Amino acid sequence: MSLADQLIDATLRVVGQSGAPLHEPCFAGNEKRYLEECIDSTFVSSVGPHVERFEKELARYVGVRHAVAVANGTAALQVALHITGVKSGDEVFVPTATFVATANAVTYLGAIPHFLDCGEVNLGLDPDAFRAWLAHIAEYDSSGYRNRLTGRRLAAVIPTHVFGHPCDMERIVAIAHDFKLVLIEDAAESLGSFYRGYHTGTFGMAAALSFNGNKIITTGGGGALITNDFALATRAKHITTTAKKPHPWAYEHDEVGYNFRMPNLNAALGLAQIEQLSGFLDAKRTLLQRYKNAIAGLGIGTMLEEPEGTTSNYWLQTLLLDRDTASLREDILARAHEKRIGMRPLWRLLHSLPVYSKSPRAPLERAEALEPRVINLPSSPQIIPPK
Amino acid sequence: MSLADQLIDATLRVVGQSGAPLHEPCFAGNEKRYLEECIDSTFVSSVGPHVERFEKELARYVGVRHAVAVANGTAALQVALHITGVKSGDEVFVPTATFVATANAVTYLGAIPHFLDCGEVNLGLDPDAFRAWLAHIAEYDSSGYRNRLTGRRLAAVIPTHVFGHPCDMERIVAIAHDFKLVLIEDAAESLGSFYRGYHTGTFGMAAALSFNGNKIITTGGGGALITNDFALATRAKHITTTAKKPHPWAYEHDEVGYNFRMPNLNAALGLAQIEQLSGFLDAKRTLLQRYKNAIAGLGIGTMLEEPEGTTSNYWLQTLLLDRDTASLREDILARAHEKRIGMRPLWRLLHSLPVYSKSPRAPLERAEALEPRVINLPSSPQIIPPK
Repeated sequence: MSLADQLIDATLRVVGQSGAPLHEPCFAGNEKRYLEECIDSTFVSSVGPHVERFEKELARYVGVRHAVAVANGTAALQVALHITGVKSGDEVFVPTATFVATANAVTYLGAIPHFLDCGEVNLGLDPDAFRAWLAHIAEYDSSGYRNRLTGRRLAAVIPTHVFGHPCDMERIVAIAHDFKLVLIEDAAESLGSFYRGYHTGTFGMAAALSFNGNKIITTGGGGALITNDFALATRAKHITTTAKKPHPWAYEHDEVGYNFRMPNLNAALGLAQIEQLSGFLDAKRTLLQRYKNAIAGLGIGTMLEEPEGTTSNYWLQTLLLDRDTASLREDILARAHEKRIGMRPLWRLLHSLPVYSKSPRAPLERAEALEPRVINLPSSPQIIPPK
Repeated sequence: MSLADQLIDATLRVVGQSGAPLHEPCFAGNEKRYLEECIDSTFVSSVGPHVERFEKELARYVGVRHAVAVANGTAALQVALHITGVKSGDEVFVPTATFVATANAVTYLGAIPHFLDCGEVNLGLDPDAFRAWLAHIAEYDSSGYRNRLTGRRLAAVIPTHVFGHPCDMERIVAIAHDFKLVLIEDAAESLGSFYRGYHTGTFGMAAALSFNGNKIITTGGGGALITNDFALATRAKHITTTAKKPHPWAYEHDEVGYNFRMPNLNAALGLAQIEQLSGFLDAKRTLLQRYKNAIAGLGIGTMLEEPEGTTSNYWLQTLLLDRDTASLREDILARAHEKRIGMRPLWRLLHSLPVYSKSPRAPLERAEALEPRVINLPSSPQIIPPK
């Protein structure tokens, strides 16, 4: 039996012989009850008690002062960049190994993503390579740091906690401080992940969470901007509700706002989901152990585990193929597809997408070497039945 | 009794003595059933059977080949402009009397809204004034028409069917044709409104519908782009799903897309709502008659009625104060607020918002004269109990 087939067999032993999708939501709580409440109240749209309750529960869980529920994680990132002062023509550092939305959020503002390399320990932004690159390209003038190769202002950095594994925030915070970069965390995948006891998304000025259908909890579509800064939270709420000034009847908008608030209907679903989060997290930890046991001794690769000092939510279980088995990836993915196993590769590295091929970039050797080695395995919490 | 108080009394006789909000959704159909189906299927996010069914029902009702369900009406407008070729630096004609989102959608693309006057018959774009203004400012060169005052390309026009009353589409279509302007209708408020037997939103290259909580049907938050053009519909669906190329596992995005698809959860609600649309339309027609009877003889103004050759959905009932009673508006709105009657004025004219104060504009005398005369009255269909 080929090594690829042995991996498929090992996976089927974990997820069951009929296969499993990559990530399915699990609705085993108050979902229907809260949706009914929502319909009975008639508050289904951007104002309603479930939005406020969901925001409060989120903020409490994450340990942050403010959560502003919005339409999706992309909107949260776009708004976070906008309200922290990123302007058209600025450069914003983005890892090349992230979902395309991280770069798109920068592009929507007329800013330019500048791609960074990632490291093997967590697939996140590599701080040493980042600092070395800044030493090479950043030059200081009275208004801050500029890229001496392009002349553009270096405005911000967006580390993504890839598949839920926390980035090395201590060193990233230090770099952002030293180079006066706004730090916005892309915590879209990392609800439930902690770095040295603090929740991911609480180290910068603001962060984005996502509750898309494939995330650890879902609101159908949705996201949140989280921040400890009252002024930023107030501005985020204002700008995501078309920047309308409060008035019982008059319509006045004091800036170009967005229609980005999360509807109450979606928040009702989210509220039921967040009540189940700790169970989901337990299941995903158990699932990691099952996968580790199942692939032990195959000699195909290793399961990615939380870096020391962090707690990962294990949103997507990640197999890192060995260097000498990486060539099997396409074969594995094709066989998995036949067997109805939802495996998938890493996102195509963003600097290699035609639309971002002209964006500035640091040397990206590590990301390019890692990319062919990554395979996500089915990760739904319900693969592990609740105790 | 003052004239303002007489109007308040007349309104209370129609809506009931405890008052009524401006517009509340009415959930008297399959809302809970479809939401339960949706939860049971686990498809709550951007892929799912309810989205497809809702799109099909919408397209069938409107009489258009394609409907693409999206996050909201603003997103539908932004995408419609983008895929029909509006570029950064172009000018797009927008009525000054519309919700701010119409202009914002233009601004998001880096284009510039150019404000137009409106007429009394339907509060929509005034075709005679528009043509006269174009004769004054438009000059032709090889690439199309430019604004000779600013040098910018004149790219598109977005007539809004205000409060559901159809614009004079025959003449607007002719102007768009003569001046090579892309025609995108803002039909956010006009689901159920027809011009000479054809649904609003079917006269241009594409149009935007809205299903926000205050609209004639709601999905919580949501909208749709409608078009008869297969290529535009395909592109709209692609670009609203992050421009990901179809593939069972790989992630490739061939342009800067958006995360704008309507979640299946919201479409489930919309499906239940569209089944009730004809009842809502009947109720709103009856409501108009009640208001007409109630204010007859007060000498305060007239109810806005559908222009000849059109059928309005009467989304928001609209009282047009007489010229000599317009000064009562603020007093009326304040008293209505005290009595828990959801009345509201016209939107502040967009050219008078500080954020759009520097945008180009046609002469806007008619809009400025009309603005102080408009008051919307409570318009929920459930004010008229179903037969």
